Amino acid sequence: MSLAPWRSHLAHALHRNHSLPYARYAQLATVRLDGKPANRTIVFRGFLEDTDQLKFITDARSEKLEQIVQFQWAELCWYFPTTREQFRLTGTLDLIRDTEPDESLRNVRQRMWQDLSDQSRIQFAWADSGKPRADATAFSPPSPNEVEPLSNFCLLLLEPIRVDHLELRGDPQNRSIYHRSDDGEWNVEAVNP
Amino acid sequence: MSLAPWRSHLAHALHRNHSLPYARYAQLATVRLDGKPANRTIVFRGFLEDTDQLKFITDARSEKLEQIVQFQWAELCWYFPTTREQFRLTGTLDLIRDTEPDESLRNVRQRMWQDLSDQSRIQFAWADSGKPRADATAFSPPSPNEVEPLSNFCLLLLEPIRVDHLELRGDPQNRSIYHRSDDGEWNVEAVNP
Repeated sequence: MSLAPWRSHLAHALHRNHSLPYARYAQLATVRLDGKPANRTIVFRGFLEDTDQLKFITDARSEKLEQIVQFQWAELCWYFPTTREQFRLTGTLDLIRDTEPDESLRNVRQRMWQDLSDQSRIQFAWADSGKPRADATAFSPPSPNEVEPLSNFCLLLLEPIRVDHLELRGDPQNRSIYHRSDDGEWNVEAVNP
Repeated sequence: MSLAPWRSHLAHALHRNHSLPYARYAQLATVRLDGKPANRTIVFRGFLEDTDQLKFITDARSEKLEQIVQFQWAELCWYFPTTREQFRLTGTLDLIRDTEPDESLRNVRQRMWQDLSDQSRIQFAWADSGKPRADATAFSPPSPNEVEPLSNFCLLLLEPIRVDHLELRGDPQNRSIYHRSDDGEWNVEAVNP
């Protein structure tokens, strides 16, 4: 397949902001069960091969999981400090869990687990996130298996259907909005910043 | 009045990240008219005096305006790179426009306008944001009056009722959730990260 036309701009931004580790952090907005917005920082883990889907990881015990199960829509806001540009990616989220029927996606989840550091993996064995603070022993579990993911480890995929790219450099600034039509084709429009 | 207990932590983060201009940028999530989440970068402009309300500015022609009019709830996600900590501030948004009945808030809006750079003020005279790209003349309007704000200039106030503070430094990380009760008192709970 051909990559979406916004992919080259995002790749360029990632490249030019590479010296900042936190340039791979973005903010993911979802909708809470009571209808209020939720928003948290999340780490970009690359694209799912041969797709325009962005990969993230999450814990099945996190609040965002129940939000996503109820309502798949999300907007990722990604600001790049060095190049002073922002991408807003609107789309739907898919959770890939241990019960995932698609074998290739199950394998992607497993490889993602294997690629994590020990320090990242062990957090999935910690006490439940957001619950009253547990004592120190709850944060010193045995190291999880390095090959088989813990069941609460989830791969999270964002499939954008709209991308709003704003470049603050320039006077006036440049802004383009990409839309994916129902037949899967992307079109782009230059708009006022 | 006494400041909310999370204020000292936020002030400390602002101070320790002061060398990064973009440490004053945060991501504001709201809900679109169709129920989907929206998320964009916004610049923190200080606190409204003697309150715990965060100040921002926006253009009445922006999409977020109609979102806020329909549904006041928002969540601001604020990541500080130097100190590796995140604040998630959940609360309601208030728009202060030229028709604002409260004189002191009208004055705050006017002072905010006066404190902007020429470069920031002129953007409120540019062609409508998000509309098909106008020609260059639409971005070279006469300089607006420096004293009286343009009518589409809005002050935006976020009044938090919940603040989730996560410090990534530390093993395990530290996380505290602050809640404001109906009588206006804040309580805090240490939770698992």
